[in-house]
Amino acid sequence: MGLYHPPTEDLELAAVLHALSDPQRLLIVRTLAEHPEPRPCGTFGLEVSKSTATHHFRVLREAGIIEQRTDGTAKFNSLRRDDLEQRFPGLLDAVLNSAVVPA
Amino acid sequence: MGLYHPPTEDLELAAVLHALSDPQRLLIVRTLAEHPEPRPCGTFGLEVSKSTATHHFRVLREAGIIEQRTDGTAKFNSLRRDDLEQRFPGLLDAVLNSAVVPA
Repeated sequence: MGLYHPPTEDLELAAVLHALSDPQRLLIVRTLAEHPEPRPCGTFGLEVSKSTATHHFRVLREAGIIEQRTDGTAKFNSLRRDDLEQRFPGLLDAVLNSAVVPA
Repeated sequence: MGLYHPPTEDLELAAVLHALSDPQRLLIVRTLAEHPEPRPCGTFGLEVSKSTATHHFRVLREAGIIEQRTDGTAKFNSLRRDDLEQRFPGLLDAVLNSAVVPA
């Protein structure tokens, strides 16, 4: 079984905003926006436990903000930038352009 | 004692996104954006109890999204559109322009 990724047309604004409403999850999204290549979960410098980090990545994936692909024992993350832009034009850029929030 | 309203420079992105991440609160914000005159809490057609509605208005006020002014026994609400635009350019418009989310 692959990981669940909602199709673009099913993305919900409230769920996307909720997923973005956490400083650690914003840090993940900013990192992926600045470094677009798929990136393993352990490389984001999050200041949380591994299980909390896993939770944050899952919230982002289930809201449709990131794609996660498994390769061996690692999960590689990338931003669903085009999907988000199609469904909520300008939203991700507005979030990324906002003042950085202390974590 | 007046109600607390955070100053514009103290608005935090994560708190604003969290406050917007609920369908009833999005409905309040959309209503205020479409009808900018200050509006009493009971006139938004929310499908929640009065205490839940009060909670939603408080979350929006404490995040800096709305201003609430008391007049007699009523609270009048308005959108802090300019403050939000100054702190998070483009964010509110991107949210308002996104597809309407079922409540």
